[in-house]
Amino acid sequence: MTHSRFKLPELERFIEDAMVALGFPKKDSHVIAQLMTQADLQGSDGHGIFRLAPYTKRIQAGAINLHPQIKILKEKPAMALVDGDNGMGHLVMKYATELAIQKAKNTGIAWVGSQYSNHAGPASLYAKMALEHDMLGLYFAVGNANHLPAWGGLDMLLSTNPIAAAIPTLREIPIVLDMATTVAAYGKVKAKAQNGEMMPEGWMVDQEGKPLLDPNQSDKGFLLPIGGYKGYGLSMIVGILAGALNGAAMGRDVIDFNKDASSVTNTGQAIVIIDPDAFGDIQVFKQQIDQFIQDIKASRKMPGVERIWLPGEQSHLKKLDHLQFGVALSPALIEQLGQLAQALSISPLKAASSH
Amino acid sequence: MTHSRFKLPELERFIEDAMVALGFPKKDSHVIAQLMTQADLQGSDGHGIFRLAPYTKRIQAGAINLHPQIKILKEKPAMALVDGDNGMGHLVMKYATELAIQKAKNTGIAWVGSQYSNHAGPASLYAKMALEHDMLGLYFAVGNANHLPAWGGLDMLLSTNPIAAAIPTLREIPIVLDMATTVAAYGKVKAKAQNGEMMPEGWMVDQEGKPLLDPNQSDKGFLLPIGGYKGYGLSMIVGILAGALNGAAMGRDVIDFNKDASSVTNTGQAIVIIDPDAFGDIQVFKQQIDQFIQDIKASRKMPGVERIWLPGEQSHLKKLDHLQFGVALSPALIEQLGQLAQALSISPLKAASSH
Repeated sequence: MTHSRFKLPELERFIEDAMVALGFPKKDSHVIAQLMTQADLQGSDGHGIFRLAPYTKRIQAGAINLHPQIKILKEKPAMALVDGDNGMGHLVMKYATELAIQKAKNTGIAWVGSQYSNHAGPASLYAKMALEHDMLGLYFAVGNANHLPAWGGLDMLLSTNPIAAAIPTLREIPIVLDMATTVAAYGKVKAKAQNGEMMPEGWMVDQEGKPLLDPNQSDKGFLLPIGGYKGYGLSMIVGILAGALNGAAMGRDVIDFNKDASSVTNTGQAIVIIDPDAFGDIQVFKQQIDQFIQDIKASRKMPGVERIWLPGEQSHLKKLDHLQFGVALSPALIEQLGQLAQALSISPLKAASSH
Repeated sequence: MTHSRFKLPELERFIEDAMVALGFPKKDSHVIAQLMTQADLQGSDGHGIFRLAPYTKRIQAGAINLHPQIKILKEKPAMALVDGDNGMGHLVMKYATELAIQKAKNTGIAWVGSQYSNHAGPASLYAKMALEHDMLGLYFAVGNANHLPAWGGLDMLLSTNPIAAAIPTLREIPIVLDMATTVAAYGKVKAKAQNGEMMPEGWMVDQEGKPLLDPNQSDKGFLLPIGGYKGYGLSMIVGILAGALNGAAMGRDVIDFNKDASSVTNTGQAIVIIDPDAFGDIQVFKQQIDQFIQDIKASRKMPGVERIWLPGEQSHLKKLDHLQFGVALSPALIEQLGQLAQALSISPLKAASSH
């Protein structure tokens, strides 16, 4: 069986129907469906409709609040702490990001953190919301499972805590960085296991610090942070900014949402919005970024390198492809979504084409 | 000849005398000497008195403004852009950091960037200034020489652009991260060359992407970013936040201050100050960080690991040692400083002891 392609409106319709069937208000279902579909649109495969089944499991276990009162707990001119009231992370972080954008217009920069949020999809979704306002976005999150110990340790106290950044441009594709602070995200390990492939050296180590290559043994080892002890420090700082600062879980308080579908996660995230117009002329800024991108693209290449990529360029190209041809889903995922449609009594997902 | 130890007040006296002899006002000379000595105090060997000779070269070449009018160019409640007027970076970033701390008291978070600044010492110096106000500090800077190309490229368009973060604690040693976005800082390459040692694989590659191990051949290769393309993206984002956003140099506009002692660098930096009291109770926050540190320290260890370190812990121990016994300087550096004392007609540096 081959992958099939699905058009964006159909993916969004399906997710929205599922959310409504699960008991979310129509309006919230629409927002969640839009953001999850955007994840698939930009090629963040592990963060879009792929998550619908695990989300459903958590929602049906009563671990997500269907009617959260998302509200500001603490506020100053350039910051806020948002209480997500254990709602879907997408709703919480859309609220937080829109608040930060509003604040940044007055203060030049704004920082909004969340507590009692949940998994919100790919980090770049929220950082990118700044772009349509000609602003810069930075995003930090505590990952929903601890996959690495302290540097030299064995107890898993840190997560893949991701960082995203979005930088507006004039004519070039915006720069969008979206990275875990580990060499590989855990989803990539799962994909290797599914495909029956070994992992390259450098992704994981076992309890003795030796390379772990078999993804089916991933339970017996740890992800490696980028740059060794540097990535360990970076993951920690991201965890503090997104977690501890917001009164959200970090360290031993993090719930492993792969193993526990019923506990409240108290997920923490942070969105930072910067208005470049406060620092100077926005046109000049965007021209400088364009020039920098052009310098990088015009750069001489290492032997064997066909093209130099800017962060966000590949996902932009995926977006163009997906808009035209739809998003390709694997047979296993299609089957899972078929079962979900039956269980929730919603119309099954209709493929655009097979290829 | 062995290393000799020098007490902190004597190092500070020597640097201050040098700055006064070079034409800086007494007050500014004192501030520069204090901050450079703090770098040595915390063990940032490459950023303290080690820099006095290269700074002197730039100052004597007229590349630094002895009487800068450091001022606010742009301002909103939570941000400012500071014009360093080509003054010493230490003066510019002390001004910027104090301004950010003041603003953060009102707004909860503040972001202050600099343009026409210069090299300001180790990144952590300024992030750490937040700690005495029970605040968090983040610092980003554009490095003063491009040492890496785009991922897959050959033209050096990016620097080691460092990140620092300082997190206050209750009873534990504050968490202080200070890292280049490359696997090794360029100073470490220079040190390997001085010591006649080869570099480990992973620090640098040559023009064909093959490992470069001989530090004397470092001109023929590039530093590697942490996590490969991730560190390339991270270095770029830091460069944009500290450089382009502030109208400061980044990319091809960066002056290599190792090769060019006379051009104005237009160095950019950014300091971010966060008041945790705006997000919740500062005591609760600090307790949570203490608990996290204790969990990490109590963690089971990998075979062969004696101790798990927190970021900033080693430099804290160096500080305690240096306060008691003084800072150890190499014979080569001592000789260089002796020549400098003669050239500037200041009293030579007096050692505390030899060992």
